[in-house]
Amino acid sequence: MKRFPYKLKSLLVALICLPNALTAIADNGHNLWLNDSDRHTSPQVSITGKRNDSPTLRIAENELKRIGWEGATTFDTGKRDMPEGAYSIMRTGGGATTISASSPIGVLYAVYELDRMMRCQQDILNINVKESPAYRYRVLNHWDNPDGTIERGYAGFSIWKWDELPDVVSPRYEEYARACASVGINASVLNNVNAKPIILSDEYLSKIKVIADQFRPYGVKVFLSVNFASPKVLGGLATADPFDKEVKAWWKAKAKEIYSLIPDFGGFLVKANSEGEAGPCDYGRTHVDGANMLADALRPHGGIVMWRAFVYAPSSPDRVMQAYDEFKPFDGKFKDNVIIQVKNGPIDFQPREPFSPLFGSMPKTNLMVEFQITQEYLGASNHLCYLAPLFKETLDADTHRMPAKSTIKEITASNDRLSAIAGVANIGDDPNWCGHLFAQSNWYAFGRLAWNPDMKADEIAAEWLKLTLSADPAFVSPMTHLMMESREAVVNYMMPMGLHHIFARDHHYGPAPWFEMPDMRRDWTATYYHQADADGIGFDRTMATGSGATSQYAEPIRLMFENKATCPDKYLLWFHHVAWTDKTQNGLTLWEDICRHYDKGLQQARQFQIAWDKMRPYVDSEKFAHVGDKLKIQTHDAQWWKDACLLYFQSINHLPFPDDMERPVYDLDRLKKVDLPLKLHGCPTRDMLP
Amino acid sequence: MKRFPYKLKSLLVALICLPNALTAIADNGHNLWLNDSDRHTSPQVSITGKRNDSPTLRIAENELKRIGWEGATTFDTGKRDMPEGAYSIMRTGGGATTISASSPIGVLYAVYELDRMMRCQQDILNINVKESPAYRYRVLNHWDNPDGTIERGYAGFSIWKWDELPDVVSPRYEEYARACASVGINASVLNNVNAKPIILSDEYLSKIKVIADQFRPYGVKVFLSVNFASPKVLGGLATADPFDKEVKAWWKAKAKEIYSLIPDFGGFLVKANSEGEAGPCDYGRTHVDGANMLADALRPHGGIVMWRAFVYAPSSPDRVMQAYDEFKPFDGKFKDNVIIQVKNGPIDFQPREPFSPLFGSMPKTNLMVEFQITQEYLGASNHLCYLAPLFKETLDADTHRMPAKSTIKEITASNDRLSAIAGVANIGDDPNWCGHLFAQSNWYAFGRLAWNPDMKADEIAAEWLKLTLSADPAFVSPMTHLMMESREAVVNYMMPMGLHHIFARDHHYGPAPWFEMPDMRRDWTATYYHQADADGIGFDRTMATGSGATSQYAEPIRLMFENKATCPDKYLLWFHHVAWTDKTQNGLTLWEDICRHYDKGLQQARQFQIAWDKMRPYVDSEKFAHVGDKLKIQTHDAQWWKDACLLYFQSINHLPFPDDMERPVYDLDRLKKVDLPLKLHGCPTRDMLP
Repeated sequence: MKRFPYKLKSLLVALICLPNALTAIADNGHNLWLNDSDRHTSPQVSITGKRNDSPTLRIAENELKRIGWEGATTFDTGKRDMPEGAYSIMRTGGGATTISASSPIGVLYAVYELDRMMRCQQDILNINVKESPAYRYRVLNHWDNPDGTIERGYAGFSIWKWDELPDVVSPRYEEYARACASVGINASVLNNVNAKPIILSDEYLSKIKVIADQFRPYGVKVFLSVNFASPKVLGGLATADPFDKEVKAWWKAKAKEIYSLIPDFGGFLVKANSEGEAGPCDYGRTHVDGANMLADALRPHGGIVMWRAFVYAPSSPDRVMQAYDEFKPFDGKFKDNVIIQVKNGPIDFQPREPFSPLFGSMPKTNLMVEFQITQEYLGASNHLCYLAPLFKETLDADTHRMPAKSTIKEITASNDRLSAIAGVANIGDDPNWCGHLFAQSNWYAFGRLAWNPDMKADEIAAEWLKLTLSADPAFVSPMTHLMMESREAVVNYMMPMGLHHIFARDHHYGPAPWFEMPDMRRDWTATYYHQADADGIGFDRTMATGSGATSQYAEPIRLMFENKATCPDKYLLWFHHVAWTDKTQNGLTLWEDICRHYDKGLQQARQFQIAWDKMRPYVDSEKFAHVGDKLKIQTHDAQWWKDACLLYFQSINHLPFPDDMERPVYDLDRLKKVDLPLKLHGCPTRDMLP
Repeated sequence: MKRFPYKLKSLLVALICLPNALTAIADNGHNLWLNDSDRHTSPQVSITGKRNDSPTLRIAENELKRIGWEGATTFDTGKRDMPEGAYSIMRTGGGATTISASSPIGVLYAVYELDRMMRCQQDILNINVKESPAYRYRVLNHWDNPDGTIERGYAGFSIWKWDELPDVVSPRYEEYARACASVGINASVLNNVNAKPIILSDEYLSKIKVIADQFRPYGVKVFLSVNFASPKVLGGLATADPFDKEVKAWWKAKAKEIYSLIPDFGGFLVKANSEGEAGPCDYGRTHVDGANMLADALRPHGGIVMWRAFVYAPSSPDRVMQAYDEFKPFDGKFKDNVIIQVKNGPIDFQPREPFSPLFGSMPKTNLMVEFQITQEYLGASNHLCYLAPLFKETLDADTHRMPAKSTIKEITASNDRLSAIAGVANIGDDPNWCGHLFAQSNWYAFGRLAWNPDMKADEIAAEWLKLTLSADPAFVSPMTHLMMESREAVVNYMMPMGLHHIFARDHHYGPAPWFEMPDMRRDWTATYYHQADADGIGFDRTMATGSGATSQYAEPIRLMFENKATCPDKYLLWFHHVAWTDKTQNGLTLWEDICRHYDKGLQQARQFQIAWDKMRPYVDSEKFAHVGDKLKIQTHDAQWWKDACLLYFQSINHLPFPDDMERPVYDLDRLKKVDLPLKLHGCPTRDMLP
């Protein structure tokens, strides 16, 4: 196994390429929030505590020196009563620092906390910090395919270089693990939930072992998405029936093989009987049968199964209802090393959804939230959309299902049982990892909230800004404001007031509220979701006159959603078909209100450009230009979205635009013909856009 | 000669085409300001006066009936003391109406005046109107080519159907003549100033005769643009030297031939030794020699020569100076049936130019203004740009050359000598004639100002709006405001503060301030005109440090232009190279001021959309949609212009945009690559635009 001499290589690249390549390398955002470029190794720190037998502690020591920590510092890993990953930091009056944890990874987390404290200019002379992670597994789901593409990836190709592995070890593996550890992420599902069986082949496992070895010192466990049909496709068996003896044996043997290579392997993530993937239902079995069979195979090794609840059939009268209908009856039937992975909303990572009614509805089942960090439905890596407010909207939502702890974060972060939280990664092999510099903040924010869901979104934004770009208050304050506004802006110009899934097909980037095709599943068309007609718009999901999806929520949520007058405007068209001329809660007609939302989104995007332009003094020129270019596209797209949606809806309702609203500049006919050359991945370049 | 049964044909078209074709035909703008659709023939009028021997009076009678005029009406054509075309209308207390003139055409003009008065809801019971045209020749210059294309035509192909003529007589010829007569236009140069010799061939003259016959009853004289090399190319002579006997004889014979076919033929328009066209200078002769030779040929028949002063050589240090330098020495040397046709500004129909210094500088020479009605430099037929304010800016400009009458309208409309005024037509075979409905207003306004240059631009706008669309004050008032603002908006988003000619080459539609090519004439590049560099922008034409073009103006104009502090901001960069950071008259830096102008133009275009949208109740739906679609493109283009110019200038000066200015949405690199598939004619469709 040859290790490529990375530092030498990057020096060569710098020398060979542009004259300013040396600075460019420091400025392309590759360092993420760790921002190594402006640090100096400090000789002032003296560390005590046994470290030589722990690669993790050696890393902690190096990091402590790198961040310039000063004074006597003790690593104490003997606190057996602390949970895995938890740590405390004690210091008084600038004296000696003591970092305590139950194992080395807690110490490393503490060092990254010290880094944050220093660079966020907190008091580091007197420290009394005790931190413990809210979720046991803090997971990134990579939708990376063996061919190097990433489903819904907008930052280049996969960072896992399968063709090079196991011989060549990209420095990215360690860099990635370090970045994850710095925000407490401790689990990584390497491959797409639409899993190819080959990932479990001997060949691939030998590659995966190399990655796992790189991750291990940073406390990041490797997981794999598995194809339920693997015993047939890969093992040559006649079936993949979970009740079949040979199938069970195949999975047990495969688990054993994996653990022999990767002793701390995390487990499997499974998308079964969903969007055409194989699953236990193919054999008349249930999700419980499938998940528990895999759980049995992993149990001897300490592995877990994350089983997705993302199911919807063409026969369902209302797509949002199916996961609840199908999974709730299984409550209490899954093994205790199974956890059901539920998307935050009942459809599919839309700009805004009400929370999934499954949360709180399966009290005897391990349940985890799945967020999407990659912006499949939020402008890919072209739009600045800070997602912590979206994550918080779900985590803080009160299900009213349980008497004491009934918010989703309380339900899912319970210490009594297996707990986890997942985000679909937005990471690729672009130099800056995420395509958009600000998309890094979503990776960061996911990690911080997975550690502590009580953190505030603006607090995390400010932290990320200080660590990544500048700690100057004249920068942090307006940019925190911008980040906090950004997701609402995207909702405004894409799908305000509860509208959802009116995206162009396949790439989900631009607007296509007109989209439908004969003979296509209705729930794959846009018109199914908005239900616009001459009288009104919105999907009636009330019990009184609609699909009854409101019934899946507990009182008083159900009643609030059911009643048009009490349903929050932001969910109005999710739950109700409303007349264009009905008054909304702010006294406008629905049509006026929709128009004003779209227009506001466009104005917000323009304001982002203006705000960013004032930040030139605080930001390196390459990053400044990069973000400026992206914001341009965002404003362009906001106009595109606004025009497409409003002109289309107007073609149905024939109502005039509000008097003082800025008018569209595009023609509907032309926008209907826009056909981006993208399918499941890739971020459109400006040249592709209308 | 077969007359095509037009009315039958249009009925058939209506019946064959769409179910709503009958109404559509009434709504496509084909009727111009004459708006025949809502009239009824009135049986109430009784006309006295001899009419049978005059086709013009028969038309006047029919028009009077058509407009619904009531009561006894006398046509008196015996007022020999009135100039050609002049008329008076007398009526008291709703009694008998008397229309007096020196010839039938005056009566016809009076009838169109009555039409205007009725439809503009003026008092028609008591009338005491005396009208006399300011210019003897009120000319439309058609830049139509024998192949049916129109140079700088944005409303389809030529209405002259040379292939069909002389056999088929398009109803358009009469419709055109009638529209011209209705606003007093009495001369039409049928073909492009870049003239093909073939236009003087026997074949073409027989076609032109048919057109002239159609025009005659409406008082419209036919003129032709001639190629100075015609005696060689068409006549087979060895030379076109104006001193050559055979050449002179050729032209005399040709004139005789023309007049034998068209006894009231108007004369020739000549573009000589300009942009590659042939001319007397090819033989060492002068413009005087060439013009006078043609004048001699036409004189026996009463014809005139309109000789263009549009000359500029690559050797000239400053293109704006050449026409003055070359023509002023000829003052007093042209024959009295020659008139020099001078473009309103010294370059070429830019969105804004100072007036041409030739006006007032040749007191012993007939001089006429040439305007461009077709929007070569003003957004083609995509942009709403009401041109009367531009026309008035020139006509009202005080040259300070003559003691009493020194405005350009006073100088050129003098009754003492041959007078004329010309506009390059914006007419093509589009159903609505001009491409953009509002472009009709420029044809209309040109005619009205050619008749009476003292009319106010807003008065003409209101008149046109009432005649064409609606007389409702709730419509006329805001739309007059919009029209009056429109040209300034175009200047703002294209070329504010004296910038000029930074258009893309060939089609002159979009922005290309970056345009230059090695080995190209400098005065065909954009960078020549704006002279932007790191320090500043603008063409130094002062006597003190620049080309000295200011010297061509009379005091105190010269001094005002020469001095940066007194030069009006609107001409600042025309005459001065100004530092980016210099303060303008409103206290901003030049860069801020330029930015604000571009941004204001964009905001104005958006406001036009909003204003128009409120007009739905007053406008037929087809016209409403048509104008709305065009305004959309205008806003789009305003953004394109703003972004292209500001980003390009910023790439030179590296200055930030003003804090609160809306930011660009385009990338400069991308805009530089825009290459519209257009050369000299054709209006871009939305799909061609970036």
